[in-house]
Amino acid sequence: MSESQAAVREICDAIIKRVDRAYVAECGRKNEFPQKLWDMWVDTGLLSMGLPEEFGGAGGSLKDIVLALDLLHREALLLPIAVTNFMSREPIMHYATQAQKERYLPPTATGEEFFSFGITEPDSGTNTFKIKTTAIRQPDGTFLLNGGKTYQTAFLESSHCLLVARTSPLDSEDRTHGISVFIVDTTLPGISATPMSIGMYLPEQQYQTYFDNVVLPADSLVGEEGKGLSILFSSLNSERLLVAAMNVGQADYVLKRAAEYAKVRAPFGVPIGSYQSIAHPMARAKTYVEAARLMMYQACDKHDRGESVGLDVNMVKILSSEAFKMAAEIAMTTFGGAGVDVSQDILPFYIAAQNNTVAPVNNQIVLSFIAEKALGLPKCY
Amino acid sequence: MSESQAAVREICDAIIKRVDRAYVAECGRKNEFPQKLWDMWVDTGLLSMGLPEEFGGAGGSLKDIVLALDLLHREALLLPIAVTNFMSREPIMHYATQAQKERYLPPTATGEEFFSFGITEPDSGTNTFKIKTTAIRQPDGTFLLNGGKTYQTAFLESSHCLLVARTSPLDSEDRTHGISVFIVDTTLPGISATPMSIGMYLPEQQYQTYFDNVVLPADSLVGEEGKGLSILFSSLNSERLLVAAMNVGQADYVLKRAAEYAKVRAPFGVPIGSYQSIAHPMARAKTYVEAARLMMYQACDKHDRGESVGLDVNMVKILSSEAFKMAAEIAMTTFGGAGVDVSQDILPFYIAAQNNTVAPVNNQIVLSFIAEKALGLPKCY
Amino acid sequence: MSESQAAVREICDAIIKRVDRAYVAECGRKNEFPQKLWDMWVDTGLLSMGLPEEFGGAGGSLKDIVLALDLLHREALLLPIAVTNFMSREPIMHYATQAQKERYLPPTATGEEFFSFGITEPDSGTNTFKIKTTAIRQPDGTFLLNGGKTYQTAFLESSHCLLVARTSPLDSEDRTHGISVFIVDTTLPGISATPMSIGMYLPEQQYQTYFDNVVLPADSLVGEEGKGLSILFSSLNSERLLVAAMNVGQADYVLKRAAEYAKVRAPFGVPIGSYQSIAHPMARAKTYVEAARLMMYQACDKHDRGESVGLDVNMVKILSSEAFKMAAEIAMTTFGGAGVDVSQDILPFYIAAQNNTVAPVNNQIVLSFIAEKALGLPKCY
Amino acid sequence: MSESQAAVREICDAIIKRVDRAYVAECGRKNEFPQKLWDMWVDTGLLSMGLPEEFGGAGGSLKDIVLALDLLHREALLLPIAVTNFMSREPIMHYATQAQKERYLPPTATGEEFFSFGITEPDSGTNTFKIKTTAIRQPDGTFLLNGGKTYQTAFLESSHCLLVARTSPLDSEDRTHGISVFIVDTTLPGISATPMSIGMYLPEQQYQTYFDNVVLPADSLVGEEGKGLSILFSSLNSERLLVAAMNVGQADYVLKRAAEYAKVRAPFGVPIGSYQSIAHPMARAKTYVEAARLMMYQACDKHDRGESVGLDVNMVKILSSEAFKMAAEIAMTTFGGAGVDVSQDILPFYIAAQNNTVAPVNNQIVLSFIAEKALGLPKCY
Repeated sequence: MSESQAAVREICDAIIKRVDRAYVAECGRKNEFPQKLWDMWVDTGLLSMGLPEEFGGAGGSLKDIVLALDLLHREALLLPIAVTNFMSREPIMHYATQAQKERYLPPTATGEEFFSFGITEPDSGTNTFKIKTTAIRQPDGTFLLNGGKTYQTAFLESSHCLLVARTSPLDSEDRTHGISVFIVDTTLPGISATPMSIGMYLPEQQYQTYFDNVVLPADSLVGEEGKGLSILFSSLNSERLLVAAMNVGQADYVLKRAAEYAKVRAPFGVPIGSYQSIAHPMARAKTYVEAARLMMYQACDKHDRGESVGLDVNMVKILSSEAFKMAAEIAMTTFGGAGVDVSQDILPFYIAAQNNTVAPVNNQIVLSFIAEKALGLPKCY
Repeated sequence: MSESQAAVREICDAIIKRVDRAYVAECGRKNEFPQKLWDMWVDTGLLSMGLPEEFGGAGGSLKDIVLALDLLHREALLLPIAVTNFMSREPIMHYATQAQKERYLPPTATGEEFFSFGITEPDSGTNTFKIKTTAIRQPDGTFLLNGGKTYQTAFLESSHCLLVARTSPLDSEDRTHGISVFIVDTTLPGISATPMSIGMYLPEQQYQTYFDNVVLPADSLVGEEGKGLSILFSSLNSERLLVAAMNVGQADYVLKRAAEYAKVRAPFGVPIGSYQSIAHPMARAKTYVEAARLMMYQACDKHDRGESVGLDVNMVKILSSEAFKMAAEIAMTTFGGAGVDVSQDILPFYIAAQNNTVAPVNNQIVLSFIAEKALGLPKCY
Repeated sequence: MSESQAAVREICDAIIKRVDRAYVAECGRKNEFPQKLWDMWVDTGLLSMGLPEEFGGAGGSLKDIVLALDLLHREALLLPIAVTNFMSREPIMHYATQAQKERYLPPTATGEEFFSFGITEPDSGTNTFKIKTTAIRQPDGTFLLNGGKTYQTAFLESSHCLLVARTSPLDSEDRTHGISVFIVDTTLPGISATPMSIGMYLPEQQYQTYFDNVVLPADSLVGEEGKGLSILFSSLNSERLLVAAMNVGQADYVLKRAAEYAKVRAPFGVPIGSYQSIAHPMARAKTYVEAARLMMYQACDKHDRGESVGLDVNMVKILSSEAFKMAAEIAMTTFGGAGVDVSQDILPFYIAAQNNTVAPVNNQIVLSFIAEKALGLPKCY
Repeated sequence: MSESQAAVREICDAIIKRVDRAYVAECGRKNEFPQKLWDMWVDTGLLSMGLPEEFGGAGGSLKDIVLALDLLHREALLLPIAVTNFMSREPIMHYATQAQKERYLPPTATGEEFFSFGITEPDSGTNTFKIKTTAIRQPDGTFLLNGGKTYQTAFLESSHCLLVARTSPLDSEDRTHGISVFIVDTTLPGISATPMSIGMYLPEQQYQTYFDNVVLPADSLVGEEGKGLSILFSSLNSERLLVAAMNVGQADYVLKRAAEYAKVRAPFGVPIGSYQSIAHPMARAKTYVEAARLMMYQACDKHDRGESVGLDVNMVKILSSEAFKMAAEIAMTTFGGAGVDVSQDILPFYIAAQNNTVAPVNNQIVLSFIAEKALGLPKCY
């Protein structure tokens, strides 16, 4: 274990001592911001991890962040907007101008400001090529933004949104062209948002957003105009690994809960954990969780060494989401009828696990990718 | 199709024309009683089905009731308390005195009164032998009720509850002895109830109930004192089939919804329904739904002819719950990220399907039963 | 149970009493024709079932034949060529001339002659449109046959082969045209065949056949020239059901064997049948076997009443093959390391079960068909 | 990659260039010893890997041997007796006297002699406590051996057998006592063996052996009398990893074969590899193979560093056997009807994959172990 990993462990231990799952679960049920958990991320410096010191960050590798998420999720201390924040910061760190970096990055380290992320649209799904939100450059250099996004986590609560929009029509010669990335002040005139009803017991609200002739200043653009897709793709690998950390962490949490329950629940005299129909699926799930975790950390190491990890992280997406689903499913079965009692706090993970097989990208697309890259099979969608 | 089945179809068609899923789903999300749907059950006489004419009923076989539930659930017009009502009526019809029947049955046909059902306790789970709620006979012939139940659907809304309690301690010589069945007025002094938070988007509230020195009149007892278990077991087969009808009906509903979505959703230009990873699981699920349905109706026929159906209905429990789960799972996958959007009305079925693999009895117990009865294997729990 | 079904049962009971599995298994291991079993089919008249009396047959419905196969396969008394014989007889009964019927049908009832079936080619797989074997009509009315077939069960042992060949090139306007069906004397000059090594422990040899300028008499043609596909499709539904009978029968056989073993095998003191990881999969398999069987007989009834059964029989194909596979897999697991000991006679069923998910048609095609017909999804291959 | 691993790769490359799968497959079909492959193992020094130089070995870590097996099995160059040889050598290296080592080890490096392994008995299965073969010490110090073993790979071909026998009756106080390990000259009077019919297309014969008053010299005993179980357990971890290497290697082989086939097979115009029902299961299998492989090598590293790997290697057993099974199953499905054609050389792997889920230890026991050790669940068998 490296020094920085030891530091991460220490920080997470401190957080786990001071914030418990009961609090986070309650926030989730009430759709309330988990201020105490957020404060701990700020106070311990976790929020500033991955950000260079010159922008107020604490530095640290992707593996450190992944480790932090893994550890906190093993106690089910979920904080999705922290992940959103990480994800939005990546393109800014790599593609923004020095002025943009100096303006936008430091407040994300202190928690004074944070970013939401705007990419998904109702009709585009996993196919970013098909987004319809447009940001058309005006003669004065500004961009006129029209359209809308869906599933925008904490949009109204965030100060800014990293938004993906089309700056020129789909070019059939070069499909990768025409999409751009913007930093959007969420309070600009013409922006509106309605909360969605998401059945996941998460603290943060998700929004449907609408952009009606929103004028974006010229310096809103991140990176080169029309090159937004490569900007986005550059952070996909990190995203896969952050999501994987949440999967394996939560998988361990539900397995721990299920094992505890199976050791004491004994309607027929012996603990149900001594029935193979309960014990074996748990053991299988645990096995697959560990395999996913192992490949996840190996991919982090490769990523942090600058090696290519496209195939690795996609395999990790499959492994971690399937392991989480296995774990959540046997947990529900173990709890029996009590599984749907929200106060038992198992149901949220069952729903999250299924959702993580299709989000942020569906496993079908991922398997198609693996089939092509690892086995040389033809495109299958 | 028999004449009575034709009548059932006509009634269901009428209900489907006048109450739509949107209304029932909204009631589910708000935890509000679906008055319009209940009124249709009353008005069309569906509520009185299965009850002999002398008690204000419309007669009809178990198959008729199963058919009605199947048809209504194909449109996701759920009304769980109607099922509770059926289930509670069974023991009264077969074991109550003529006076009890005359007092309690007719109002359940008109909807003026209805029964909730009280059997499950936190520690007993599927093992009814272990219930701790006691109803001790007093010198004056009354019973003193103490204890509590869990997962009592619509307890406070119901006029009466059919309650299972222990009237004498567990007798290790004859474990089947000592449990009795009572009709309990839910407004009696000493009764209290707190609503539970059940994450199933069902209209009815479920309750944790508490009985503190509740005095039950002598004529509350249904059937012979201490013989409650055989009274209960006599209606288990019907229960399995009613639940199966809800499973296959809802399975068809989610498959229909998923197929509609898969025909129009086309992020990459072709409908996702043309991808085998979407189409094949749907086709498999449909195949298993039809197999479950077929065995369900065959078991109804056998039941209505008075034949033994213990093995059949337990197989139907497995088939119908697994088919529903298959269907709900591929539906969630088909809807992708939109699956957890409550307004899409797919998530409730995903949760219900999992729950129906463990409730009202868990599939593990059912498989153990089948292993013994159909294959001669030793007891395995 | 109808009278004819009672008769079928009696016949099968008689066969089961006189031929045991040990004999048939031994023939399978040695690739030797099971003469004793064949003789019983002849002697009891089973072989003549389904054939009208005017051609020496015993009559009887498809359900009768399916019942016979189901019953005999429950004892693993396999006789694949009997099925081939049935399958080949169908088109002759429905499409051949009276002269052809009188010449070819009677000897198939007595067993003096029997038919093999020639359709599959190496490159065509499940797509019959793509067969390359040609039968070109000559000026003198004869047909010149060239090409070859694969997986031809008992070709050299059979007197005749019902062969599918292209009589005119693929017509892109009408793809259903150009294929014809012939009765081919297997001893004609220009015919050769080499045995294949099929790892299924079946008594019959399978052959790769080669046709080199074989001259077929003009009266070899069955039905109209170029209309062979509709001739073939007309017997597909029967084929699905005959194969299903073999699946559910064999599934029951392996489950019986596995249950017997699980009751006595006790390496840790208790029979392994008391472990849920053994008992539950067996119980599930048994449940699915019964569901498949139920739909199979229902489809037979519908078929024999002249109703449309296209969707039913395809669902039965899925159900029966998956149930057989489930059964064979848990049987192998139950036998543990002894599973691969050929003398234990479990391995042949494990291989057959997998094979029956892809033959005579693969389940992927069948699921695609169900997705289209039952759910209205677009074509997905 | 370490230097020794580079050397292993070079050796394996050399073998792969000179011996092809066709040869090994043919030996498997004919049950003939693959002399050419054995010679390569001898000539390249692979056979002497893991053996200290003082006994004629080439040294090398467990990871080196695992790597060699992985690489060779990716080309399906199976040589089970090499594994038997490794396994038998382990206890001798760690527990035998210097004299025994000097006598028995060197010839196993040159291939002049090799060991078979005798532990499994018909009734004992995975429970070694229950073996019945006895070796009773005689007054003259010799042991009188009686009993028999099953599934003894290449017993008659081997010069010696490492045999496990009971030297004193089961002691209920100390169940671990009473079992001893012997080096048995396979040509001793009183030994007989009959070949078994194993349906796995392996080159080596397996035997049922019988020991009838065989007199074993006093110096046949390896290690302390009665302490055989701990001797055996000490090499279990290595065994798990050697078997895992064979699993992941073969899994890659069948996936490669299936992918090649799926790229060219095109009954409906497009390669079947473009169907998601073919491509996705292959991609999933590949993903799980890589996860298993990763944990396998990690466990090797830990083992070679002297760390505890009991949990790791058992997880690797589950992962590698399930991944192999997934791979073999989709390979069979991809090959369709051709899967059972032995000449296609896919069937042997389908059978091996199933067998490796129950041998050399069944996955049920392994899952029970993981449930206890990783999740703290009670014993469940």
